[in-house]
Amino acid sequence: MTEHPFDTDTQVEPVAERTYAATLSDRWNALGGVPNGGYLLAVCLQALRRDLPFPDPMVASASYLRPAAIGPAEVHTEVVRAGRRVATGEARLVQGGKETVRVVATFGDLGAANGRTEIHGRPPDLPPPDDAVGLPDGGLPGVSITERLDYRAAALPGWAQGRPTGDAETAFWMRFRGGREADPLALAALVDAAAPAVLELGVHGSATMELTVHVRGRPAPGWLACRASTRYLIGGYHEEDFEIWDSEGRLVAQSRQFALLAG
Amino acid sequence: MTEHPFDTDTQVEPVAERTYAATLSDRWNALGGVPNGGYLLAVCLQALRRDLPFPDPMVASASYLRPAAIGPAEVHTEVVRAGRRVATGEARLVQGGKETVRVVATFGDLGAANGRTEIHGRPPDLPPPDDAVGLPDGGLPGVSITERLDYRAAALPGWAQGRPTGDAETAFWMRFRGGREADPLALAALVDAAAPAVLELGVHGSATMELTVHVRGRPAPGWLACRASTRYLIGGYHEEDFEIWDSEGRLVAQSRQFALLAG
Repeated sequence: MTEHPFDTDTQVEPVAERTYAATLSDRWNALGGVPNGGYLLAVCLQALRRDLPFPDPMVASASYLRPAAIGPAEVHTEVVRAGRRVATGEARLVQGGKETVRVVATFGDLGAANGRTEIHGRPPDLPPPDDAVGLPDGGLPGVSITERLDYRAAALPGWAQGRPTGDAETAFWMRFRGGREADPLALAALVDAAAPAVLELGVHGSATMELTVHVRGRPAPGWLACRASTRYLIGGYHEEDFEIWDSEGRLVAQSRQFALLAG
Repeated sequence: MTEHPFDTDTQVEPVAERTYAATLSDRWNALGGVPNGGYLLAVCLQALRRDLPFPDPMVASASYLRPAAIGPAEVHTEVVRAGRRVATGEARLVQGGKETVRVVATFGDLGAANGRTEIHGRPPDLPPPDDAVGLPDGGLPGVSITERLDYRAAALPGWAQGRPTGDAETAFWMRFRGGREADPLALAALVDAAAPAVLELGVHGSATMELTVHVRGRPAPGWLACRASTRYLIGGYHEEDFEIWDSEGRLVAQSRQFALLAG
């Protein structure tokens, strides 16, 4: 446990059997001034990690039911099944008696995943981080999560220059500010920590309904190479696919979300 | 309701509040002689559809906890949130007091999805179904689900000829035998109804841990064009992505699963 905001702001305290107290911080706000969905997932996973006998989230699905609010929250957990190799639990994030997020997650030991490996994909093609362009210092006004992370890309995104490219496929470097390295639990949050790829279609935002993340490995220290894309916007609903590759060129997380355009 | 096996075998009967009785049929067996995961998801969605005020599953996540068995089962449901536009519920498939599958699903009205549409992808390139090669009549020995469906492709899969191609990317036509057309609930099952793409890597099978499906539209009648791929097999764990396009060339379902190689 460090004093980094990601650790302090996702901390949970047991207050009753299978019940944890959390405080949702205003330091992880997404567009719209509400806590980011990946941040809420991380809070739920912190509670589940206490109840499950394995250290690493391997697959987690979060259903976003209502916008969460800054301030106190409870996480109610259930151990669904604990097996020899993996364990599955459910977490419900509740505020003011109303459930805002439901998570089902399976934890395991990524260090024990010693089966076959075969990769048919590559990390995104990016200039070295030091040669890449960063978002302006301080991030985007009102979107406090951008103050917690560094993002660098080959060029400023089209939407950030008022000229959306029309192609909802982006690639960039990402890491926590303040020197905290990513770990498997943080990866589950980071797949939702960048601007939605659909901003390049000239839309103003998007609300995540469901997010599933697969954590595929423990990341090496350093910058994370990310790729985000939306290929199918249909009737206002869209997927977003996200990949995170670590500094040694290994895929460490993959996610897909289902979202509805805002407005 | 028709007399088609998909309808009779996914039928549920209310037996108590939020409790339904189901009978798992032996007509939807996957490799290994256990009920196929997509079939189990469909049974759960049939129960949820009774309790939620919208007709179409839009996004569903299923966590597979234990192998299911042919025979009686119960589905326990919970209405998590019913809103104006969508409603979310949870279903637990239980056999002999043990939970085998947990599903969280959000239903809506696909006919009311009238927002923007922008497609950056194409259906798979396939010869017309009448010019394509089918699996031999009667399907694969012991894999009864292959007797319920017709599959046609440009050529027999490499794995079916004893020569896996080494490329876990496949494209094929699929439809129910017996003239039943697909609907949104059936699509949620069909994304898991084909041979795993990893068979082309020369492996013998794979066990799904989690499956998330997005249903993107009500399919037009006729053959469904499908694309399945696994790009990242890491330490024995892999994703499988699946797309279904209808006979009018529209994407109607997209799924991703997280699975562990068998053996």
